[in-house]
Amino acid sequence: MQLDQATTEQLRDWETSLTQEYQQFKASGLNLDLTRGKPSAEQLSLSDSINEILNSDLSNESNTDLRNYGGLDGIPECKRLFAGVLGVKPEETLIGGNSSLTLMYMAVQFGLYQGFGDLAKSWNSEGRTVKFLAPVPGYDRHFSVCEHLGIELVPVALKDDGPDMDAVEQLLKSDPTIKGIWCVPRFSNPTGTVYSDQVVDRIAQLGKIASDNFRVFWDNAYAVHSLSNDAPELANLMDSCRKYGTEDSVYLFGSTSKITYAGAGVAFAGMSKANLKAFTHHLGMSQIGPDKINQLRHVRLLKDADGITEHMRQHAAVLKPRFDIVLKHLREGLGGTGMASWNEPQGGYFVSFDTLPGLAKEVVKLAAEAGVKLTPAGATFPYGKDPANSNIRIAPSVPSLEEIDRAMAVFVTCVKLASVKQRLS
Amino acid sequence: MQLDQATTEQLRDWETSLTQEYQQFKASGLNLDLTRGKPSAEQLSLSDSINEILNSDLSNESNTDLRNYGGLDGIPECKRLFAGVLGVKPEETLIGGNSSLTLMYMAVQFGLYQGFGDLAKSWNSEGRTVKFLAPVPGYDRHFSVCEHLGIELVPVALKDDGPDMDAVEQLLKSDPTIKGIWCVPRFSNPTGTVYSDQVVDRIAQLGKIASDNFRVFWDNAYAVHSLSNDAPELANLMDSCRKYGTEDSVYLFGSTSKITYAGAGVAFAGMSKANLKAFTHHLGMSQIGPDKINQLRHVRLLKDADGITEHMRQHAAVLKPRFDIVLKHLREGLGGTGMASWNEPQGGYFVSFDTLPGLAKEVVKLAAEAGVKLTPAGATFPYGKDPANSNIRIAPSVPSLEEIDRAMAVFVTCVKLASVKQRLS
Repeated sequence: MQLDQATTEQLRDWETSLTQEYQQFKASGLNLDLTRGKPSAEQLSLSDSINEILNSDLSNESNTDLRNYGGLDGIPECKRLFAGVLGVKPEETLIGGNSSLTLMYMAVQFGLYQGFGDLAKSWNSEGRTVKFLAPVPGYDRHFSVCEHLGIELVPVALKDDGPDMDAVEQLLKSDPTIKGIWCVPRFSNPTGTVYSDQVVDRIAQLGKIASDNFRVFWDNAYAVHSLSNDAPELANLMDSCRKYGTEDSVYLFGSTSKITYAGAGVAFAGMSKANLKAFTHHLGMSQIGPDKINQLRHVRLLKDADGITEHMRQHAAVLKPRFDIVLKHLREGLGGTGMASWNEPQGGYFVSFDTLPGLAKEVVKLAAEAGVKLTPAGATFPYGKDPANSNIRIAPSVPSLEEIDRAMAVFVTCVKLASVKQRLS
Repeated sequence: MQLDQATTEQLRDWETSLTQEYQQFKASGLNLDLTRGKPSAEQLSLSDSINEILNSDLSNESNTDLRNYGGLDGIPECKRLFAGVLGVKPEETLIGGNSSLTLMYMAVQFGLYQGFGDLAKSWNSEGRTVKFLAPVPGYDRHFSVCEHLGIELVPVALKDDGPDMDAVEQLLKSDPTIKGIWCVPRFSNPTGTVYSDQVVDRIAQLGKIASDNFRVFWDNAYAVHSLSNDAPELANLMDSCRKYGTEDSVYLFGSTSKITYAGAGVAFAGMSKANLKAFTHHLGMSQIGPDKINQLRHVRLLKDADGITEHMRQHAAVLKPRFDIVLKHLREGLGGTGMASWNEPQGGYFVSFDTLPGLAKEVVKLAAEAGVKLTPAGATFPYGKDPANSNIRIAPSVPSLEEIDRAMAVFVTCVKLASVKQRLS
């Protein structure tokens, strides 16, 4: 039944039965968790051979001693491997330590305090608040980088094909204090959005309308993380930039955190050769080089583009059934009720769910009281403030299939109960 | 013969024979390198079992999945292992990635921009140039961190027992813009100095006379890197701080870069629990956690304090003969000539050598032209400027014994030739 077509009496009956259902869940002492956007043990085990893979053989392409200091930008074979993931050339690639977040943080700092190597162009030298555009809903850790560094976040809507580019272009033209934009271009966290070719092409042109120390922070965290073979591809940003001469306006990032080990992977960045030279110099002030041995482990494990594809197929085989259960519950429990909308992602780690306006916090609270932990409502928005109070991020990768099944039953009941109560009030 | 007792005629004869000797070296096409303060392949091989050591067994004390995200401050068994190296409690220890330089850089930034968690106390909020004390000669990468971040370096003399504490205390009392001091307290780079108990005790008291956002940056890079069993011990800084209630005024650092692998080791920091809480929060803005798998490898390889001692004894067996050759050449070639002074280190990676005032650059140039590469003169001083132009850092760890033997013969000749020429001019 559709919520807005129910009579008051029907709503009251519904409320009664839903309350009963909810109380039963509450009484059953559940302890389930749909918050964690990280790989399950089963997924991590797909890479376990990495711990033995060196087999005392540290031979490598450039014939250097990987055990020693040096090699700030990573080993050549690893650059080649991950350049392909980012869609840049190996000579535009930097391989870092275990965290792309660290590379992003350092890149933001580099702009803020050092002007990417030209102090006169430091963002903070202009004496005004520095701003970043934040397509919303988005990734909380992008937001916290900015918040921690005193950069103001300006939300722009994330539409089905990517950020609202009319708004983005308008804002950039009118406000020169906007120095960056966060993008998760394929299987966005949390919406699963894949930016369309047109959007990618317009993003490549932002460097022409923005100030020359503006950067696109292209966090391609889920570049190869599709759930099926026919998931949409992402257009090549750097190739578009070459067309417009805007190569210096973009930083691309990725990591193997959700390919091999989340805690012991390798991170990588793609950027123009000019950017790479400046950024590597900057990195050299705070480190002598990354863990090259771990880079070699990754090359030995994943080998090449086909190796990555095959490896990710195994991840998909573990993940897809989890997403299927989530979506089954949503479709069967909430389809046609007018109580909610959600995405059906073809990759990534999340299902983005929207309640009716004003209900996200209530649903998260109801679920928590019934033993189902959800990401706090608002977490997908800057400063934790979802103006509509409707977005909830569902992360099904870690729990077992059975746990997801039980958790989603609770979730659907909570959404219905909150919606009916709101309608009655 | 002593330089200042030679007659002009004797000096001329000397110049002639030294020039001949030098020309012969020059003609022999040497290509030797005494610049690199890093472990040799032989030393790195001491740790090669680390690549196989996990043997698929990732079991660990806290029973967590080390392959996944999390654990910002490191795994407990690794904290316990390296807390002992720094002389702090395990609960005062953070285990990071592969670079202590990165931890130091982040700590300096944390003070500069964030006031260690209290923005109102950010060093840069005071609107004045921030300064650090730099005991000289010292480590160039400490200096470059400050230079890169716009922090001015104020040199203070490094005496035989540590920094000139009278000068340090005087400067801190008179200049509140001094926010830090760099210390390499055991086997200082490059002088091999071990700070005396009295100096350590006075450093522990700096927190009482300095501004409350002042920090001692205690880079104990060579904490366990003695060349013999009877090398002087270092007093425990944190214990002294506890006596004076100044625990919050010190950050201690170390790494296994010169214990296991220089490129793939683990770094660690020791600090008060209050500092650790604030710093960990700060780190959490730029990373989700360090490579815990590599931490486990280190625990398995080194096991405990005795394991570290035994491992370092093997390093000393490789290093000591190298230092012995350097010192033999210096003693036999320059002893009693009045042309030079040098330290005889009982640990660390360097011999610090002083020419007569004004000759370091000339000696480095002469040696380079004869095929012996030395660290650029001045590198051990802030901004590369040695006011006396006399200090040269000799790094004998990488070349073979035979190479060191040949390089030092050239070096001694260059020192003598430059000294005689200067005396004659």
